[in-house]
Amino acid sequence: MHLLTRFIAAALGVISCAFPLRAAEDTAADEKMLRALYTAALTTSPAFEHLRELTAKFPGRLSGSANLAGAVQWARTTLEKTGVDRTELQPVLVPHWERGAAENVRFLAKNLSPAPLTAVALGGSEPTPAGGLRASVVELPSLDALKTGDVKGKIVFFNRPMNPEHISTGRAYGEAGDQRNLGPAEAAKFGAVGVLVRSLTLALDDVPHTGNTTYLPGIARIPAAALSTVAADQLSRELQREPTLQVEMQIHSRWFEDAPSHNVIGELKGREHPEQIIVVGGHLDSWDISPGAHDDGAGCVQSIEVLRLLQAVGHRPRHTIRCVLFVNEENGSRGSAAYSTAAKEKNETHLFALETDNGGFQPRGFNLGNPAGNADTLAARWKPLFEPYGLYHFQKGTGGADVGPLLAHGATVAGLTPDSQRYFDYHHTAIDTIDKVNKRELELGAAAMAALIYLVDQHGL
Amino acid sequence: MHLLTRFIAAALGVISCAFPLRAAEDTAADEKMLRALYTAALTTSPAFEHLRELTAKFPGRLSGSANLAGAVQWARTTLEKTGVDRTELQPVLVPHWERGAAENVRFLAKNLSPAPLTAVALGGSEPTPAGGLRASVVELPSLDALKTGDVKGKIVFFNRPMNPEHISTGRAYGEAGDQRNLGPAEAAKFGAVGVLVRSLTLALDDVPHTGNTTYLPGIARIPAAALSTVAADQLSRELQREPTLQVEMQIHSRWFEDAPSHNVIGELKGREHPEQIIVVGGHLDSWDISPGAHDDGAGCVQSIEVLRLLQAVGHRPRHTIRCVLFVNEENGSRGSAAYSTAAKEKNETHLFALETDNGGFQPRGFNLGNPAGNADTLAARWKPLFEPYGLYHFQKGTGGADVGPLLAHGATVAGLTPDSQRYFDYHHTAIDTIDKVNKRELELGAAAMAALIYLVDQHGL
Repeated sequence: MHLLTRFIAAALGVISCAFPLRAAEDTAADEKMLRALYTAALTTSPAFEHLRELTAKFPGRLSGSANLAGAVQWARTTLEKTGVDRTELQPVLVPHWERGAAENVRFLAKNLSPAPLTAVALGGSEPTPAGGLRASVVELPSLDALKTGDVKGKIVFFNRPMNPEHISTGRAYGEAGDQRNLGPAEAAKFGAVGVLVRSLTLALDDVPHTGNTTYLPGIARIPAAALSTVAADQLSRELQREPTLQVEMQIHSRWFEDAPSHNVIGELKGREHPEQIIVVGGHLDSWDISPGAHDDGAGCVQSIEVLRLLQAVGHRPRHTIRCVLFVNEENGSRGSAAYSTAAKEKNETHLFALETDNGGFQPRGFNLGNPAGNADTLAARWKPLFEPYGLYHFQKGTGGADVGPLLAHGATVAGLTPDSQRYFDYHHTAIDTIDKVNKRELELGAAAMAALIYLVDQHGL
Repeated sequence: MHLLTRFIAAALGVISCAFPLRAAEDTAADEKMLRALYTAALTTSPAFEHLRELTAKFPGRLSGSANLAGAVQWARTTLEKTGVDRTELQPVLVPHWERGAAENVRFLAKNLSPAPLTAVALGGSEPTPAGGLRASVVELPSLDALKTGDVKGKIVFFNRPMNPEHISTGRAYGEAGDQRNLGPAEAAKFGAVGVLVRSLTLALDDVPHTGNTTYLPGIARIPAAALSTVAADQLSRELQREPTLQVEMQIHSRWFEDAPSHNVIGELKGREHPEQIIVVGGHLDSWDISPGAHDDGAGCVQSIEVLRLLQAVGHRPRHTIRCVLFVNEENGSRGSAAYSTAAKEKNETHLFALETDNGGFQPRGFNLGNPAGNADTLAARWKPLFEPYGLYHFQKGTGGADVGPLLAHGATVAGLTPDSQRYFDYHHTAIDTIDKVNKRELELGAAAMAALIYLVDQHGL
């Protein structure tokens, strides 16, 4: 063997040996870092107290409300206390809809006194005419059924339940959601005068769930409300008994001029690539009737906690790590759009953006997406690091409503996947309260998010 | 090639081909069966209503109580309604301890009026002397610290918190549990006159957690109570301020004669091997102060539900499948011992026994044990079948307190592993109520149990 060949072989030997050694060192360092992040989250986290404060002081943080404005200031102050390098309030003009006086829905049947049905107006619903709307009711299982039903001059009652067979309740929500989101607009096309929708939940109780409905240009904007599942079942039974019964709806909502608001930003400057940005965030707004503990107060305090955790374990970020608390996720996504537009205008480079908006439950994994469509596969190399903490799912996805648009800017996007069983028991309701959040589950979610942010910052994707 | 050789080769070819084909068919059939079991559990289960009934009618089902007797009859009736082939009440003589009037614990410090500490007597605690027990207090972090502390004539206050760093709260419970279980007996060896123990929970609240304490033969039986974690922190602070403060304890408990009770059994007869038994079960008793929704009402209604599910999907069991609801798990394990003894006397063959006693939370996997020590590995071949339902853990274990003894009879034993984060928030308290149980999580647990029982019945382990 020629001496040079032997030299090269020896060098290759070193290299081929060095790679596994280096990888093993990396793995050991990463395992240590994840353990430190989890320990800091489980022993010293203020996240749960932050959530208690946010939901107690600023419940009902709907776009345009005084409580959203209060929450914006609170979030900035909380980020400053967390010791970030910079905070910013990014201007966003948000829609401003108010429910007004409590809505009233009741049915009028022969030989019965008028009986109330527990209901809330859908977000964005038009008001009923002065004195209320009274009409007979057609129960339909789907938007498709509008084609064959005679709904002209009537109130359409969409009553298809979420499918309990799905293990993921999010999937069941997605499948049933068209009734609420597009039901009123579609029913209006066929001449309906109002819409009632079965609340989007798998729970059978008397708690009504609101949520956005989308009107279509050129189509009549008819008033719409959600019934609790108990009320929906009751109305359905009464309709079987007396198909000609009438329902009376009173909704007192009102649209106002767009209102000024802000995305709240706090960041840790990167020491190697300050111009390259990693985002972690949730949305600060909530429905007007809801304290928004799980949706998405949890995501906000977890995102703030990620910045605290990285500092607590002494990680000095290579890239700039930015916590973004978006406004107006619930009824317009203007916060997300403003952030994305500003990023484009400033020519910012976004490496990665992680969103959490599925509740503060025990984390099970992440959904990931990038332009090449293989982010989930790339991240899956870290799966063994997460398994001791109970995270197993690395699935393809598009992050979430707020970070999704950054995909078009070339960023890899991700979303935390927590347990889904309890989320829709509380979603968009008055009972999405702090007592529904388990402190440790909230902390485990923050730790998992911090771990993924650390790995991306340290190793890239 | 000789004709015979060719024939053998062809036969082998068929065989080597047939095995994978057969396995693929098995897998497809198993997938279909699991899906059917989950669908039946998520759409038609009475388990949650059973749990509501059990906890509403028979809370505080401690051994010797009228409510345990009521629960025994309720369980038999519920099993009969489920359509089993045979029910049985298996006699068990159980210990009978009663708490009596509510306990009183308060501290007496200079310049302060006597202040109450939220407390409950430990299960089995001796009463305090008439008029109460008054003594100064020594706070200790462990049983070991008794060796160096001066505790003679004093009340020992064990105040080591459960370790929040562990991801499994069960592990944290196991590590801190010696204070409650053996603390009073060990402290008595060193001359202590009473014991206070920090409640075994990771929650910081004013809810005290009871649980069994074990006295030792020949050692003084001193009274013992658990403080809520808030009260424990308060007492600790006051002791730092005033190390000589005294605590007054009043416990009015009483032991009675052993009482007659019963394990409740219901079974589906096996069509191929009726003499070979597969057990699924939980324990019917609960602490006196607790409705016992998660501990272990959940396990009972899930075990009953397993028998319903197998019938609902049309599975005709090859082996006899027996639901056993054990009594006296909390303070004596006499139900488990009686079952095991009877099995030995009747020379019964127990193939497999699955227990669930860790709460009705979302299932994550199973622990498994057999005499060869490889049950977890054998069962792991079914892991891919469970992953779509969110179960990933197949770990070595010994089932649980009630089925563990069957290991010595050659049975494979298993325990359901649900999420552990919330369990110790409620464990052994007055707040272990139906509203802490999520209907779907309870049903998912029952479906996972039914799936494992089906697989063992169909394929063996």
